[in-house]
Amino acid sequence: MDTYLHHDHKEEHLKSSDLLTDVVIGMSDGLTVPFALAAGLSGAVDSTSIIVIAGIAEVAAGSIAMGLGGYLAGKTEQDHYNSELKREYYEVDNLRNREIEETKEFFKNIGLSEELQAKATEEIAKDKKQWVEFMMKYELGLDKPDPRRATKSALNIGISYIIGGLVPLSPYFFVASPKEGLGISVVLTLLCLFVFGWFKSKITGVQPWWGATRVMLIGAAAAGAAFGVAKLFGG
Amino acid sequence: MDTYLHHDHKEEHLKSSDLLTDVVIGMSDGLTVPFALAAGLSGAVDSTSIIVIAGIAEVAAGSIAMGLGGYLAGKTEQDHYNSELKREYYEVDNLRNREIEETKEFFKNIGLSEELQAKATEEIAKDKKQWVEFMMKYELGLDKPDPRRATKSALNIGISYIIGGLVPLSPYFFVASPKEGLGISVVLTLLCLFVFGWFKSKITGVQPWWGATRVMLIGAAAAGAAFGVAKLFGG
Repeated sequence: MDTYLHHDHKEEHLKSSDLLTDVVIGMSDGLTVPFALAAGLSGAVDSTSIIVIAGIAEVAAGSIAMGLGGYLAGKTEQDHYNSELKREYYEVDNLRNREIEETKEFFKNIGLSEELQAKATEEIAKDKKQWVEFMMKYELGLDKPDPRRATKSALNIGISYIIGGLVPLSPYFFVASPKEGLGISVVLTLLCLFVFGWFKSKITGVQPWWGATRVMLIGAAAAGAAFGVAKLFGG
Repeated sequence: MDTYLHHDHKEEHLKSSDLLTDVVIGMSDGLTVPFALAAGLSGAVDSTSIIVIAGIAEVAAGSIAMGLGGYLAGKTEQDHYNSELKREYYEVDNLRNREIEETKEFFKNIGLSEELQAKATEEIAKDKKQWVEFMMKYELGLDKPDPRRATKSALNIGISYIIGGLVPLSPYFFVASPKEGLGISVVLTLLCLFVFGWFKSKITGVQPWWGATRVMLIGAAAAGAAFGVAKLFGG
């Protein structure tokens, strides 16, 4: 059982859960922010159509901001990796002594004796590609990013935000007054936030009941605050 | 010069720039989403007060969702670190042979000979604390999180979101019609997004002109999409 759990942990970084991470990021904000905005407006305006329009505008804005934001973050990560890779190759060729010192320093920091520091460095430095890969990963802490990840991530996050955002808005399509819509939206969205928080906790290894409650409470707090300030400014 | 740049890079992880990272996260969304929401509503409603109310409700909702979200992410990271630390100590005590194999595996992967794999593992395993720290960092890729980071991060992100969000909303406080407000808001916010994108690029090492333009274009795309869907649904 222990071995199983342990291996499970390392697999967090596998491709299949990149999708889950994206869905969690997008849906978490998608369920919360449009929900809170609609709740806030319910306390300040008399027409459900304004709430629907504002909510849909928010979902459009939020999904693009998060989706494109995720895309650019991915691209920046790639650019950063490639420029560091070039620099490491340059340094291995032109500043060999300093790189040797840095490699020894790594082995010193993990607790090897001076003798092994020198021997291990010598072995690693024999193969230039292997040495650069080692420096990238353990000196700079950079993993090689998947080049197609940025585009996929943008789509996953954006679509999850839209799906999440339509949940709290949907009641307002079918009712006559904002107050009615608010009642259904609160029940529906808090329920979804709880279920969503449950799965999110399972993925991140948090105790599920507590994790689900926390996610739900954040949504409730955001909605409460939005309701309060909208009431304050809107009368 | 090269040395300077290189050291500069490692310092990205220092505490002073955690604040900058938080400000970038909060302000990036704070400038974009309320801006796009207000722009969208400008195409669909006739009263600036609805835009102001919706905008303020969004800023309240977004700052809480992002701030508390950041807080919980920080707490989850800490819980995760502590539970893995406990597990590693357990494994080092009770599954010593497997841990030795895993440590050898690490040295094999970075390119050491079988002889050095065994010697290096032996030296590291002599000190239990040092061994566990090594496994945490290089087997699991986990850095020890700063316990006060979660709270600070939540405040920094939330406040940055509020400051960012007030920029695009401010014109609507002072004008008579949404269209007037939209004109000033677009100019003001795109300018701020450009300046903000410039500094963000400087921090993340992206070419500043291109980075600033990208950030500005995301804001414009989100606002355009929000305007389009609000127009569609609001007539």
